[in-house]
Amino acid sequence: MDPRPIGVFDSGVGGLTVLHECLVTMPHEDFVYLGDHARLPYGPRPLGEVREFAREIGSYLETQDVKLIVVACNTATSAALPRLQEELTVPVIGVLTPEAHAAVQATRSRRIGLLATQGTVDSGRYGELVHALDAGVSFHPVACPRLVPLIESDDPYGEATERAVREYAEPLKAAGVDTVILGCTHYPLIRPVFQRVFGRDVTLVFSAEETAREVSETLARKGIENDPAREGVYRFLSTGDPETFREMGRRFLQFPIGKVGHVTLAQLEAAAA
Amino acid sequence: MDPRPIGVFDSGVGGLTVLHECLVTMPHEDFVYLGDHARLPYGPRPLGEVREFAREIGSYLETQDVKLIVVACNTATSAALPRLQEELTVPVIGVLTPEAHAAVQATRSRRIGLLATQGTVDSGRYGELVHALDAGVSFHPVACPRLVPLIESDDPYGEATERAVREYAEPLKAAGVDTVILGCTHYPLIRPVFQRVFGRDVTLVFSAEETAREVSETLARKGIENDPAREGVYRFLSTGDPETFREMGRRFLQFPIGKVGHVTLAQLEAAAA
Repeated sequence: MDPRPIGVFDSGVGGLTVLHECLVTMPHEDFVYLGDHARLPYGPRPLGEVREFAREIGSYLETQDVKLIVVACNTATSAALPRLQEELTVPVIGVLTPEAHAAVQATRSRRIGLLATQGTVDSGRYGELVHALDAGVSFHPVACPRLVPLIESDDPYGEATERAVREYAEPLKAAGVDTVILGCTHYPLIRPVFQRVFGRDVTLVFSAEETAREVSETLARKGIENDPAREGVYRFLSTGDPETFREMGRRFLQFPIGKVGHVTLAQLEAAAA
Repeated sequence: MDPRPIGVFDSGVGGLTVLHECLVTMPHEDFVYLGDHARLPYGPRPLGEVREFAREIGSYLETQDVKLIVVACNTATSAALPRLQEELTVPVIGVLTPEAHAAVQATRSRRIGLLATQGTVDSGRYGELVHALDAGVSFHPVACPRLVPLIESDDPYGEATERAVREYAEPLKAAGVDTVILGCTHYPLIRPVFQRVFGRDVTLVFSAEETAREVSETLARKGIENDPAREGVYRFLSTGDPETFREMGRRFLQFPIGKVGHVTLAQLEAAAA
């Protein structure tokens, strides 16, 4: 029995989709969620810079005595997962592999699309993972630089969002894909918009539920679960404005979020030093 | 080819969950959605009164030249479906049968729970439908009078909602059900709350997707579909405050809802006269 919390981080509120599935699967565990709003979005930044941010946050979460870290951000996973696993002492779980696997299982036409940030697309990781599982798949990545800023804006459900989704979907429809990986943890927050644009015949693949399963299995195999009879608690940290985080978390994931703590970038840098 | 729109109605915004699935399945069809906010909630009212409301709205939608009507409200379906089918000339589709079927298919323990409004529980329709499919199922209905008002309130994701869901879930957990019918179209609007309260091992059954499939098949069999190459439009009507409807629709279903029309109760009554 291990009472330490699980650490989860993202550039913003996107990782809450992963946290939600973790709470459904492991209601008895405690969680610390960190949103790096001060430096959002990660997508357009050089991968080396995102890697440095991820190292800082991983180190900071270790100082909070977590027992496992979930990188609930596809850009950070693409940029930094191997490095985090080498440098941190606790297990680190990312979000790309489960989606690649689910997409290869789901496709019938063997044409798979990817919608993701520029950083994730540039890393080429999804293509590698998909082709490692099925070298015969035709893979179509599309970078969606406008989506994370729109989803984190004051008007996430407006016409600008719908227009952007339609535009990014266009090349995938033209390519005749039957499966699309939503390769950013922010995207499931506007899942209904994607569903309406792609229609019933395209399978949309998300990582959150698969990632939660991976976390749960890892805890069990390592024997570091918490008492299954207890009720877990979760707390939130942001490098940006706590009140904005609180509002957005509530809106998107229907969490009655209480207080949100503030972490400074100096604290993160100090942890990684 | 039939260019007429499809009519969809509910006491409030709950039926938007059904409309969303219809848009995913039939993006080329036009829709008219009517929310009867002036008389919400339907759940605590006598079934005879709800039946009268449903007749009025069905007749009004016929005056709008719809080609099919979806009763996207479990209370109204329980109270009025046979009557509407007898009195109206267009096909009428309700929301209970698909859920009962899905629940019987999903359960392994053959213990099924129902969360629904007082009216739906009192009608006994779900129990009849479930037992018609499997007379050996142990069926546990729970009336949830607080939920629709909370979901339509200013604070749908607050602690009061979570507390209410926990309280209504308690007898179902005690009965050891492995499948729960969310028997009100409002409830999927707070699906994450239900998921966290029931956890991964309980299957939650919703009607929206099954209902959309039923609508699509009915149009096809009757040969009254619209041109599949076109893009459909949808419009909204409310007997209550159009602005409130607009805000709630946007929040819950991520529709960039434009103008909402107002319909008076006198107009509804006149249509049924």
